[in-house]
Amino acid sequence: SRLAPDLRRKHLLRVGAELFAEMPYDEVQIEEVARRAGVSRGLLYHYFASKRDFFAAIVEGGSKELAQLTEPDPDLPPLDRLRTSIDAYLDFVERYEHSYLAIHRGGASADRKIRTVVERNQRRFERRTLDLLTGGAKPSPVGRLAIVGWHSFLVTTCLDWLEHRKPDRNAVRELCVHTLVATVIAAGRVQTGEAPALP
Amino acid sequence: SRLAPDLRRKHLLRVGAELFAEMPYDEVQIEEVARRAGVSRGLLYHYFASKRDFFAAIVEGGSKELAQLTEPDPDLPPLDRLRTSIDAYLDFVERYEHSYLAIHRGGASADRKIRTVVERNQRRFERRTLDLLTGGAKPSPVGRLAIVGWHSFLVTTCLDWLEHRKPDRNAVRELCVHTLVATVIAAGRVQTGEAPALP
Repeated sequence: SRLAPDLRRKHLLRVGAELFAEMPYDEVQIEEVARRAGVSRGLLYHYFASKRDFFAAIVEGGSKELAQLTEPDPDLPPLDRLRTSIDAYLDFVERYEHSYLAIHRGGASADRKIRTVVERNQRRFERRTLDLLTGGAKPSPVGRLAIVGWHSFLVTTCLDWLEHRKPDRNAVRELCVHTLVATVIAAGRVQTGEAPALP
Repeated sequence: SRLAPDLRRKHLLRVGAELFAEMPYDEVQIEEVARRAGVSRGLLYHYFASKRDFFAAIVEGGSKELAQLTEPDPDLPPLDRLRTSIDAYLDFVERYEHSYLAIHRGGASADRKIRTVVERNQRRFERRTLDLLTGGAKPSPVGRLAIVGWHSFLVTTCLDWLEHRKPDRNAVRELCVHTLVATVIAAGRVQTGEAPALP
């Protein structure tokens, strides 16, 4: 089938995204991507110089998809807005399981190019969470650090959940919602020199 | 100077720990370690097969030191016990700055051997935090996940603090204390199906 180059590129990225989601990074074969996409190995390499470059482009596309999926819905009350976004995040993590593992823990996590893409996305995600919480105002250094730390909490929680599948998905979502709220409150209390909130 | 083999090994590890703390992993030269320790390069390689093996042994020793330094003091009230432990953790992070960066983000973080050592230590650290909070009882899956996530919060917070040095050290410590308390409370509320605690 003949496609315009940009459509062809998109199609290859879609086929690749599915394959990298299904199996560990190291097991994905470029030949298999080409086979599924119905093109030659050579044509695939015409679009992407290497497996790393191909995966980096997939991660870039995935992060845009994630940003759209987790976009907070302004019509919902704040807590539901948060819950819905984190729910969409967990959907994404489940759907792209092996890619998520690869970029955070596995074979691709050490690659400089992929790290750059992942870190830029994390900064974007943190900024959006901050904007959501501060209404776009510049956060305090403690507030900023709290969100950076919580983002790491979210990622580690998801990785651990993919590995153990325990507790159940709802509990994971609620834990992330509760801790984000609690972390923001904690940052405020640190800022004003209050003691930790006890039960 | 002639030393018994085990003393010599300890001495080399001490000299290496200082050097890896001072400068980025990739810049540490085995020749410089040997020079500072007053031994030949050959003798150093007699004890450690490679730079990676040497660093892995240093990380192993460092984690024992960290476990001792952060051992909670049972004579203190719970919140001060936590504060004192986290303070000691920050001392350690500052003292071994470049080693800490190397194992979590830098040149050595992708190495399988070093990852194994670091992950074993993290599990140990998480278990201790859990034991402290549950009095040794088996934690709920949510409680366990919360501590795994918080440990990641702690590490990311420290890495960000080393990079930006903002907010100040006391605020970083308080943020970690507050968020651990808040995370434990959050896990309890998730467990019982309560809504997030709002201010």
